[in-house]
Amino acid sequence: MASEFSAYKILDKKRQGVEISAQEIKWFISEYLKENIPDYQMSALLMGIAINGASVDETAALTDTMLFSGKTFQFNDGSVIDKHSTGGVGDKASFILAPVSAACGVKVPMVAGRALGFTGGTIDKVESIKGFKTELSNEEFERILMESGAVLMGQTQDIAPADKRIYALRDVTATIESIPLITASIMSKKLAEGANGIVMDIKLGSGAFMRDQKRARDLAQSIINTAKRFHKKGTALITNMNQPLGNMVGHSLEIIESIETLKGNGPHDLTELSLQLSAYMILQAEKASNFDQAYSLAQKSIEDGSALEKFRNLISNQGGDSSVIDDYSRLEVAKTKTKVIAPSSGYIESFQCADIGHQLIKLGGGRNTKADIIDVSVGFEFHKKISDQVSEGDEILTIYHHEAQKDVAEKIKDKFISDIIKLTKTPIEKPQIIYEVMGDQ
Amino acid sequence: MASEFSAYKILDKKRQGVEISAQEIKWFISEYLKENIPDYQMSALLMGIAINGASVDETAALTDTMLFSGKTFQFNDGSVIDKHSTGGVGDKASFILAPVSAACGVKVPMVAGRALGFTGGTIDKVESIKGFKTELSNEEFERILMESGAVLMGQTQDIAPADKRIYALRDVTATIESIPLITASIMSKKLAEGANGIVMDIKLGSGAFMRDQKRARDLAQSIINTAKRFHKKGTALITNMNQPLGNMVGHSLEIIESIETLKGNGPHDLTELSLQLSAYMILQAEKASNFDQAYSLAQKSIEDGSALEKFRNLISNQGGDSSVIDDYSRLEVAKTKTKVIAPSSGYIESFQCADIGHQLIKLGGGRNTKADIIDVSVGFEFHKKISDQVSEGDEILTIYHHEAQKDVAEKIKDKFISDIIKLTKTPIEKPQIIYEVMGDQ
Repeated sequence: MASEFSAYKILDKKRQGVEISAQEIKWFISEYLKENIPDYQMSALLMGIAINGASVDETAALTDTMLFSGKTFQFNDGSVIDKHSTGGVGDKASFILAPVSAACGVKVPMVAGRALGFTGGTIDKVESIKGFKTELSNEEFERILMESGAVLMGQTQDIAPADKRIYALRDVTATIESIPLITASIMSKKLAEGANGIVMDIKLGSGAFMRDQKRARDLAQSIINTAKRFHKKGTALITNMNQPLGNMVGHSLEIIESIETLKGNGPHDLTELSLQLSAYMILQAEKASNFDQAYSLAQKSIEDGSALEKFRNLISNQGGDSSVIDDYSRLEVAKTKTKVIAPSSGYIESFQCADIGHQLIKLGGGRNTKADIIDVSVGFEFHKKISDQVSEGDEILTIYHHEAQKDVAEKIKDKFISDIIKLTKTPIEKPQIIYEVMGDQ
Repeated sequence: MASEFSAYKILDKKRQGVEISAQEIKWFISEYLKENIPDYQMSALLMGIAINGASVDETAALTDTMLFSGKTFQFNDGSVIDKHSTGGVGDKASFILAPVSAACGVKVPMVAGRALGFTGGTIDKVESIKGFKTELSNEEFERILMESGAVLMGQTQDIAPADKRIYALRDVTATIESIPLITASIMSKKLAEGANGIVMDIKLGSGAFMRDQKRARDLAQSIINTAKRFHKKGTALITNMNQPLGNMVGHSLEIIESIETLKGNGPHDLTELSLQLSAYMILQAEKASNFDQAYSLAQKSIEDGSALEKFRNLISNQGGDSSVIDDYSRLEVAKTKTKVIAPSSGYIESFQCADIGHQLIKLGGGRNTKADIIDVSVGFEFHKKISDQVSEGDEILTIYHHEAQKDVAEKIKDKFISDIIKLTKTPIEKPQIIYEVMGDQ
């Protein structure tokens, strides 16, 4: 049967900046998945969208088609709320906000990714806990979520398979950086997980993929618009990623810092961001009637230990060694330390934050190619952050590495001093943690 | 050996509207031709260029790489000048300007195409002359051009093969309509033919691919800029294609009208356009010192019969039956005629000109698919054109068809009256033939 649609006509419209109908987008993607439309037409469409953009309707149609290309979960439960971060250096907020929100009655169905370039991956980090299983069956995923309120799973083949195929093509055609395509990729997966709302952490700065405030706001608006189109809640926070979040960077080290934060001993920036993200999730789940109340609930779950207990449950539910919570020696941490010392007195002005991620990869704590195995034991501990005063000879950070890596560590130390850390003689203000909140609040 | 270039980085630049270097374009296209770059990356680049455009340098680099992908001719002769038309209904100017220019000392290396959509092809038309051979060896092409001043060859596999592969991909990705890509496609072939200058006839109107004056001017400027970059002359005429050029549409009929025009009996619009195009070619070849002198030379070649003799030579040089010049019965013309009659009195206001080409295809005088065989004998003869007064019952045009096609001809007749021809009660002005001349003049 001849179709009423034509790949040529759809490409012709997109080239000219004419809106494509939802039916046309659905047809194009479905035919692509059936291999009736070749890669060279799909890549032309992707480049067309990356340059000419896509309307809210087009983005919703893209999301919808990718969402229904695979398994979808449906929970008749308004308290199922997910969070997504665009990725940054030292971003471990998921390990805090998931148990905090769960302790406050939210159900958090986290399907998380692995390391991508200079940013670490939530799944890689949690795997530094011995025995923690991130490959779950659909049944396990649903059961743990409903029983314990938080589950953490790696991406599976059967959730939004269209996204996987399209992402692979975007990756080789320089069309990753497209707000409608990013939106459809994130939202198709979140909606497939059955989330009733999404809280987005859009990271902005030298350690983020987004370096431009306007683009960060455009992505926030696109995510919120798409959530609304699917009758879901959507809140986006644009947050500061000009320095690592918290003080620890590296897999085991970040798990230790997350546990410390759940014990109430976390650094200010990580604690504050995690509590705020949790508060918006609690608010979306209608477990509080306003932000202040939601924030207090989140804070209380740390004070009374209930969030820590939720994290212990999360670990043991997924086969992990939950005794790490009381005994950090059960995590692998490299024994040799190299100090990075302030070469002069002054104030920390800035970090080339993405480069911190690149230095971690040099130590083996990240991936250059998909096949690389990550060394969870290496990392950095920052003692000074932006606006902190330092005297000549003060330790700015500690490099955790293996004895055999002394030469690499020396080079990294020099790189920190020469390129990554910038000092100034003039006192500067403490940086904002959160720039802006958009959408449901 | 790792290359310093990256397909990803080139696509990333084009997506962002950042200029690509000449070296990068050359590398991308060469690697594509070697099949080291896949179709899906080339189609992403084509869509990127179609939307974000290309600079003069980028267009020149594209042209250069396509040009040197195959055989190139080099004549140390400034009088080698070619003409290109963007295609229109009834466009037979090549058959007049080539012998006229050759009679005035220009050497015209025409490599022409076949029918494309609603427009006829020069090669198809000349093949209505029995024996005319359009497949020449490179040696025959050079020899005939140098000896006789005019040669007419079909496109060969070895001139600009990159253009053929890229054109095929543009055809399925809706990226035909791109001024830099059109420019590179035309200019790579013209430069490969060894032309020292090019006169472009850019057709604008209801019987042309270009319907928008700004785009026509942009194409003209792009062709002229690219010619200059290769130290060649470039002139572009933007001409009226709101009605057929001349009175005849159809293969044998157009050859007859061309010969009549060379005998000095041509219709005004066809004669005038052909003389003007010839004059710019004569001027580029420096066979006259100003336009008026060049135009007079062209006119004189018709008056004194020298242009007609050049056409006779052209035909016999390429194995054709040159006695057609004196005996039109040696051309196949369909015997049955159906008249299209004015349904009321008034003035011809307009034609849906592309539709005239579509009606010719219905009679078999064009191609729906590449494999279709053209019937050279069918066609239309127009007795009235835009601004002409008609009385009810006057014959506006004659349809030439086979006896067996009476039903088809009746339908075409109705289509002309109902849709294609528009009459008005108010007298209107005679349309301009040439809107504008740009570039060398």
